[in-house]
Amino acid sequence: MHSKYKVLKFSSNSFDDIEDLVSIEEPLEISLKFKNQDQWVTQNLSITMRTPGHDEDLVRGFLFNEQIVKNISHIDTIESYGEKVGQYNIQNKILATLNNSENINISKIKRDFLTNSSCGVCGKSSLDALEIIKKDKTNSTEPRISKEVIIQAPNLLRENQSEFSKTGGIHASGLFDKDGKLIEVREDVGRHNALDKLIGSTLKNNQLNPKTQLITCSGRLNFELVQKVLMTDIGIMIGVGAPTSLAIDLANKFDITLIGFVKRDSFNIYTNNKKVIVS
Amino acid sequence: MHSKYKVLKFSSNSFDDIEDLVSIEEPLEISLKFKNQDQWVTQNLSITMRTPGHDEDLVRGFLFNEQIVKNISHIDTIESYGEKVGQYNIQNKILATLNNSENINISKIKRDFLTNSSCGVCGKSSLDALEIIKKDKTNSTEPRISKEVIIQAPNLLRENQSEFSKTGGIHASGLFDKDGKLIEVREDVGRHNALDKLIGSTLKNNQLNPKTQLITCSGRLNFELVQKVLMTDIGIMIGVGAPTSLAIDLANKFDITLIGFVKRDSFNIYTNNKKVIVS
Repeated sequence: MHSKYKVLKFSSNSFDDIEDLVSIEEPLEISLKFKNQDQWVTQNLSITMRTPGHDEDLVRGFLFNEQIVKNISHIDTIESYGEKVGQYNIQNKILATLNNSENINISKIKRDFLTNSSCGVCGKSSLDALEIIKKDKTNSTEPRISKEVIIQAPNLLRENQSEFSKTGGIHASGLFDKDGKLIEVREDVGRHNALDKLIGSTLKNNQLNPKTQLITCSGRLNFELVQKVLMTDIGIMIGVGAPTSLAIDLANKFDITLIGFVKRDSFNIYTNNKKVIVS
Repeated sequence: MHSKYKVLKFSSNSFDDIEDLVSIEEPLEISLKFKNQDQWVTQNLSITMRTPGHDEDLVRGFLFNEQIVKNISHIDTIESYGEKVGQYNIQNKILATLNNSENINISKIKRDFLTNSSCGVCGKSSLDALEIIKKDKTNSTEPRISKEVIIQAPNLLRENQSEFSKTGGIHASGLFDKDGKLIEVREDVGRHNALDKLIGSTLKNNQLNPKTQLITCSGRLNFELVQKVLMTDIGIMIGVGAPTSLAIDLANKFDITLIGFVKRDSFNIYTNNKKVIVS
């Protein structure tokens, strides 16, 4: 499932307004209904950011792979429910009902999964939910940066990764100043961890100065990564790969400039248009 | 942090035993200690699979980005504890103690994070923990496959992704038979979701026949992905990118053949050596 987004594309040394297809990312709240000592119990299990479509397959595979059901035939029904929310008008809640709870490991469920209460994100737009914790927009027109800074940032990030050249299998996040100087870099097999490490380190060392800085991440840009950058008040985020729909929507809502698909001589600006670029 | 692993590398039309550097992946259990109405409370917050190193930065960034602390100075100490476990002899538990709990949102913590009890994974080897749910080894010497099947699988996967060619930003997992025929494919912005969808779909449609099949995933291979394949009893797993240490260790323990870095004319076999290949 994908959608069209307006993109300002830089390539062949010029900017063009184009439309780009973006993979949709939306939260899915998975709940389980089963009999426990003759009582029907409903338990929230997990929230995952997924591309809508084949949601029933996702729930079946999740329940089996986590060994919540030992046999797929123990799943009686899988039903989406709740209001249709967000700009794609999708139900983001799904309930699996078991016809056989004999082998269900209730203590494992209670140990490994979320508590009983709902997170609230899936019952309304994820973006509305975020407004509760973040009320101010990021000052995204600062700093202004050059095309060269954007194109060089992923290269500088890679060159300063101590691990990538050795293993080829590790993500990185880097804090840059507006002139493209790398201030700090952190690596991890999880891209969200690399960004948490970067922000944790630069906060502790008083290196964050949002109006003059940008953050660059290896790989693709999803909701979770943009959400972390939002917390720092930094207004420019660069990714080597593709953004998801929710990453763009979140950046748009809080005026973060989101730049993706950075290659040797091209990149895409997904939000906040041309304001950020020094010509 | 990385380690050396023995690899059987196929390139230039021959097999060679080499050593390869692999990024380390280990679980980290993050707990929080804070005062609630004059009582010290300790709460498990999260378990994340991370590359060890800069763990304190990771916890600081996590607590700030999740807005559990509003100000980084409210974190008093961050200390690793517990036994050194696993083959890298690392402490996988970490505790952050707050000196200011005035603004702490206890209801948010209870809503968004794990329950009070420990998961048990971080207090011992992750592999030992898995043995509780999976006792049998996978029959990994079946099927035997050709080099051509390995090299073609990622291409076939990509050609049969309906979304990738449009957005360039979506992962896929595919079920293949031993002759390299694609049986089913599922896509998602989350690679774990793509694999859950594939397994859920093929389980439901009775398409799983582990002794004659393999699974191919786009991107890198981590512990979580191998764990899901393990549940299906399929013995051969192919990834386009690099595996993590824990992905290899898990595959090794349960005799899954793990193949990574598949390119136009080369690939690496990380476990189970040459047994799987038809010459």
